[in-house]
Amino acid sequence: MAAARRMVVVGGDAAGMTAASQARRHMGPDELEIVAFERGAFSSYSACGIPYWIGGDVGERDDLIARTPEKHRERGIDLRMHTEVTRVDPDRCRVLTRELPPGGGPSEERWSDFDHLVLATGARPMRPPLPGIDAEGVHGVQSLEDGQALLDALDRAEARRGGPRRAVVVGAGYIGVEMAEALVRRDFEVTVLDQAPQPMTTLDPDMGELVRDAMCDMGMEVVTGAAVTEVETGEDGRARAVVTEETTYPADIVVLGLGVTPETSLAREAGLPLGESGGLLTDLAMRVRGRENIWAGGDCVEVLDLISGRTRHIALGTHANKHGQVIGANIGGGYATFPGVVGTAVSKVCDLEIARTGLLEAQARGVGLRFVTATAEATSRAGYFPGSRPMRVKMLAELGTGRLLGTQIVGREGAGKRVDIAAVALTAGMTVEQMTYLDLGYAPPFSPVWDPVLVAARKATAAVRNAS
Amino acid sequence: MAAARRMVVVGGDAAGMTAASQARRHMGPDELEIVAFERGAFSSYSACGIPYWIGGDVGERDDLIARTPEKHRERGIDLRMHTEVTRVDPDRCRVLTRELPPGGGPSEERWSDFDHLVLATGARPMRPPLPGIDAEGVHGVQSLEDGQALLDALDRAEARRGGPRRAVVVGAGYIGVEMAEALVRRDFEVTVLDQAPQPMTTLDPDMGELVRDAMCDMGMEVVTGAAVTEVETGEDGRARAVVTEETTYPADIVVLGLGVTPETSLAREAGLPLGESGGLLTDLAMRVRGRENIWAGGDCVEVLDLISGRTRHIALGTHANKHGQVIGANIGGGYATFPGVVGTAVSKVCDLEIARTGLLEAQARGVGLRFVTATAEATSRAGYFPGSRPMRVKMLAELGTGRLLGTQIVGREGAGKRVDIAAVALTAGMTVEQMTYLDLGYAPPFSPVWDPVLVAARKATAAVRNAS
Repeated sequence: MAAARRMVVVGGDAAGMTAASQARRHMGPDELEIVAFERGAFSSYSACGIPYWIGGDVGERDDLIARTPEKHRERGIDLRMHTEVTRVDPDRCRVLTRELPPGGGPSEERWSDFDHLVLATGARPMRPPLPGIDAEGVHGVQSLEDGQALLDALDRAEARRGGPRRAVVVGAGYIGVEMAEALVRRDFEVTVLDQAPQPMTTLDPDMGELVRDAMCDMGMEVVTGAAVTEVETGEDGRARAVVTEETTYPADIVVLGLGVTPETSLAREAGLPLGESGGLLTDLAMRVRGRENIWAGGDCVEVLDLISGRTRHIALGTHANKHGQVIGANIGGGYATFPGVVGTAVSKVCDLEIARTGLLEAQARGVGLRFVTATAEATSRAGYFPGSRPMRVKMLAELGTGRLLGTQIVGREGAGKRVDIAAVALTAGMTVEQMTYLDLGYAPPFSPVWDPVLVAARKATAAVRNAS
Repeated sequence: MAAARRMVVVGGDAAGMTAASQARRHMGPDELEIVAFERGAFSSYSACGIPYWIGGDVGERDDLIARTPEKHRERGIDLRMHTEVTRVDPDRCRVLTRELPPGGGPSEERWSDFDHLVLATGARPMRPPLPGIDAEGVHGVQSLEDGQALLDALDRAEARRGGPRRAVVVGAGYIGVEMAEALVRRDFEVTVLDQAPQPMTTLDPDMGELVRDAMCDMGMEVVTGAAVTEVETGEDGRARAVVTEETTYPADIVVLGLGVTPETSLAREAGLPLGESGGLLTDLAMRVRGRENIWAGGDCVEVLDLISGRTRHIALGTHANKHGQVIGANIGGGYATFPGVVGTAVSKVCDLEIARTGLLEAQARGVGLRFVTATAEATSRAGYFPGSRPMRVKMLAELGTGRLLGTQIVGREGAGKRVDIAAVALTAGMTVEQMTYLDLGYAPPFSPVWDPVLVAARKATAAVRNAS
């Protein structure tokens, strides 16, 4: 019998461990040895769930762990926790590893050979190099360790009596607004700061304003155009305020929600190809471009945006899982490809649902597209049905052809997941006129006779015709 | 100035009045005179909302009226209520009308000329010719008058004290299950009878069984394979039981929920083309086939099923509105077509959501398709997120090509409208493998990392490969 081939995975979260599991489904240990290195203490956890754990929706840290290291090992995956990969040697097909024993202690470097390497090193939160940014009381929310530290700090702040407790969230993107909700639910007075002129720059400004209005109605303070210059610390070294060019915002807790950047220092040192935003570039099978036996997926890669034709960095668990699936199938002797994304995202702040897919106006212009826009107000259910809630749907359609280019939705219950209709239509290259006659599910508890997405498509169709 | 052309509409509900309104948007009264005849007392109302009015979700009858006759008249549509069209003379371009004054009284027949005729005569509920079927206490739920009569009867039954109140619903399709919910909410003991071996024959038997189980858990009695032979009446002439070949089911109230059949007697007498289920046949612009100036839409037509390639009768307000939109645009000098349907429907019984799109197994076989099926169990949100509810998703995919042929979903909150994803994919002719990588909205409150529809698509992809 031939010796088993060896698959080495760097990073024990969604992309890496899905790749490992999927490869194992295809091939038993006789055919394929699978070793995965994770420098942290947790594998296969949901980072996207952290704001809900902080806010109290999710009771236990372990609820966020989809599969423990033990479970992976039971399935024949040699997952080594607390082990960092410090170098990748693509030409000699080996990686250099170093154990990081939790309590410290001696750590030894070792080379580990691979036949297939999967880079799933994820992303790291952005942390601008400002005075005080690393002070105690300034929290990221990227890892379970971050989440636990923040929870402990919240408990301490709650234990300190007297006066309201104040939290400042830096960044009003997905993580920022989700953390704002979590902190409001923990009875903090919340201020959200963002350098941009609007919250949620993943939406067009007119739609982002709806988010600002709703957040203010929820009692949050939203300050845009706010350039943070410093985190002010007290005599104890703890953060006590966030300073912008104009004002100082006192804070018992500071949370950084500035988004993430691909963690690709290993790949860069190994000379692997990176895109404009620093993510690894792969082919459709999720192989690193130009490399036969190195694969990459998850938050460390750039993906093809099917609408703009460019690669983009989008850190999302759902993509990471799909990448892992594709990589595992290919290494395991099957065949799968990841065709790309259309840029769908959904989030919420309390009962406000926020969704987008495709391109924003500025993005469309930036890749040379000309378009019309249409915005519709409609309700989630038949207007007369209890629980019917308003939403606004905005569409971009290409001039002339009428092809859908993007959709944004802001509303209440029932708004967010409607973006899926547009996501599928975008993938299929439908025109807004074709969308007008889509046969969507209709019954009074579920939709008006014209689903909000269809209303927007109808208006966009008229806009295309008027502009032609 | 040329004399205005004359558009005559038969039927004052969704299709007809949408056609009238849309034509009026395109053309003012100088160009187009619009006359609409409605034999009943209500225009533009939501028949689909009646079960929710009966059940108490919707407070007032008038909530179900989207636009009153007065509103239509204000917009320059000469809507004549209580006026029946008794004959259509296509060759001489005229219809014979008769007023039906609400209190009775003399009624005169008059010819009315048209340049364009819109047939929007709707559908009528099926009523098998059984002894007692027309007795007092046997209720349809097609019109607002039906609804009011049923509500009055429920109030009377509630006023009569002593012992539990029993309702028997004949028919376990959409209307039947929705009425079962309404009656449970009115504190009736509910028995649902259906001749078929399962409730919801709009689903495959395995999915229909889930509906049966859920209805039984809700305390309803569901009897299938039950052929009703008679409605037994008391000495007062009122219905007091429903008799099947095997048993007698005592009833204070009997509700008929047997579905509807196209109301096309006028069209039949006029020699217009009808399909197998008795619905008018139209072209893509919603013109009656072979007629230049006669149009038809809504519950009285058959529509092209894009997956089976056959025409079908599907009575749904959302289609009626679209048909009206298309007809009105075309008569008004614009251009629009209705491309067909994929057979999407969604409904609920209490908190059970039921949805389907595309073809069932039997339907697919019936049109010569060969296919594989896959069924997935998944949750509506991330498993750890509060309110995450299970659902079952079944997919049919064509053998060899892997093209999606149909999807059925039964679950709780968040299940029903997910069928839209499959409806768009069906319209676009996607394969289940293409669907696996759809970029759907993901965040823990909205979806697991693999949306339930994607899980089913992935399993269907494997089934297609295994069968090839």
